Amino acid sequence: MNERLVQLFKQNQGVFLSGEQLSKELNCSRTAVWKHIQSLRKEGFEFEAVPKLGYRLLQVPERIDQASLLARLQTRTLGRTIKLYDEVDSTQNIAHELVRNGAGEGTLVIAEQQTKGRGRMGRNWLSPKGKGIWMSVVLKPEIPLPFTPQLTLLVAVALCRTIRKLTPEVGIKWPNDLLVRGKKISGILLESSAEDERLNYVIVGVGISANLKEEDYPDDLREKATSLLIERGEPIDRAALVCDFLLQLEDLYELYRDQGFAPIRTLWEALTVTLQRKVTIQTAQGIEEGTAVAIDDMGALLVAKPDGRTVTYFSGDVGQP
Amino acid sequence: MNERLVQLFKQNQGVFLSGEQLSKELNCSRTAVWKHIQSLRKEGFEFEAVPKLGYRLLQVPERIDQASLLARLQTRTLGRTIKLYDEVDSTQNIAHELVRNGAGEGTLVIAEQQTKGRGRMGRNWLSPKGKGIWMSVVLKPEIPLPFTPQLTLLVAVALCRTIRKLTPEVGIKWPNDLLVRGKKISGILLESSAEDERLNYVIVGVGISANLKEEDYPDDLREKATSLLIERGEPIDRAALVCDFLLQLEDLYELYRDQGFAPIRTLWEALTVTLQRKVTIQTAQGIEEGTAVAIDDMGALLVAKPDGRTVTYFSGDVGQP
Repeated sequence: MNERLVQLFKQNQGVFLSGEQLSKELNCSRTAVWKHIQSLRKEGFEFEAVPKLGYRLLQVPERIDQASLLARLQTRTLGRTIKLYDEVDSTQNIAHELVRNGAGEGTLVIAEQQTKGRGRMGRNWLSPKGKGIWMSVVLKPEIPLPFTPQLTLLVAVALCRTIRKLTPEVGIKWPNDLLVRGKKISGILLESSAEDERLNYVIVGVGISANLKEEDYPDDLREKATSLLIERGEPIDRAALVCDFLLQLEDLYELYRDQGFAPIRTLWEALTVTLQRKVTIQTAQGIEEGTAVAIDDMGALLVAKPDGRTVTYFSGDVGQP
Repeated sequence: MNERLVQLFKQNQGVFLSGEQLSKELNCSRTAVWKHIQSLRKEGFEFEAVPKLGYRLLQVPERIDQASLLARLQTRTLGRTIKLYDEVDSTQNIAHELVRNGAGEGTLVIAEQQTKGRGRMGRNWLSPKGKGIWMSVVLKPEIPLPFTPQLTLLVAVALCRTIRKLTPEVGIKWPNDLLVRGKKISGILLESSAEDERLNYVIVGVGISANLKEEDYPDDLREKATSLLIERGEPIDRAALVCDFLLQLEDLYELYRDQGFAPIRTLWEALTVTLQRKVTIQTAQGIEEGTAVAIDDMGALLVAKPDGRTVTYFSGDVGQP
């Protein structure tokens, strides 16, 4: 139904179509027409509505297409194989499947919409159609298994450097959440597969809330989340952002392969909002408090406790006391 | 053809059947009969051959069956769900598939034969029918990702303690090969899946060369490998061995969850043949030498170099200089 509606508007570019006309053409009620218009708006279509005149299509949603990605991509390896989808359950699932079938390093999976987007710690990740960047990248670094968390921090640095060009206040919350004014703007999920003490591959999942409006968030997220559109007041070019991120990631990945974790750690420390602050840490054992003082060679967070001890946290959810 | 041959022998228990009789019954040449007898011998059938009288079936191969496993199993969790197969490509592959479909901790996959058994570092693992224990166990420990190699050592300890009851000279070569008189008798492949800094699950693959005879090994393995049958001079009860290993593994796994890596490390150090010896280590960078002095909290091997430095190896293939 929505497709026929879009077709009608496209055949009548710049022209107002009244609710009555549309309900006749589509053979449905005017309330139904209004509902379809609303659902198209959610997908990124913009309509002007004028009483008595009706609706006029102003803008169709921008879509990420393969040609425009490849034309702008400046990387050597990352994103050189692109799998583009309209709707998937999760780009992570698709990427795992592709790797099991032999997909190589740099393979990029990107979708306009995820119906079961996954976030950290088993949470859902809101991934409405056409509004964000929902993607997964395959990496196959030859590193020992215990170094895997270093990659998590590396990806956070690449993503933070990319987003800073659009909203300078962005910072990294340990280990890999990206916040603007305390609100989450982007997240990373790094799923890894290892064989004995050697890493096999990682699937780097990245979600960037690019062009979501406030009304795109459910009530419980509105206070905790933001988007590039909300921060900047204008929509951003998603394909350009994808290409910029992949280049940042490739540069850092090569730096890491050549020089190890030390330079990545320095960059992470410069971009984090977690260190030298009082923090709470939610772990399986409960909530603990202290001052985050450093990260170690394995990417773990060192927290100074009120009693003088320094405790190493390998995982956990950092908050403010 | 082999099935009809076995049927004939079973219908004539204790009776000699001549090559001529058999070739008539099976409608094939006497040479073909001899070839079939040989191939059945490889599967574990034992025949007495007497000139002029022919062949008599002495023993059919022992098979691992679910009822006898469950009857002897003393564990609480491990092996309480058993998936038993006649032939698989790899029990690891089956276990991964089962976990993706929701299989829980302790799920045991066991097969009489693997056609594509996997060993460490992408090597093949010889898994002839009915001759060994080819199995995979699902574990879902709630530990940080960098601790995963501790599990590799834990499994090696459990396996070594199990096999020591049958051949006391068995020892662990870092990280997890089991050797008797310098020859490999059993191997472990631990495949893990993680989400960010948290381990998701591990599939513990274990191969035990139980009842292989010397002639079951190809020429290039005969000098490097041995079996419990070769060491003891008599076949062992595979189902009993599986149950004993699972109990050892469960005990150590619970100890690890309660008290961490320290007690596991002590046990590993007591059972290893790697520490306090001159070793070579083959890594992606080449072969290096030194004296293995310790393992660290991450299960890595510390090697003292001739120049006085101590180098940490997270992975590599240990040999003798």
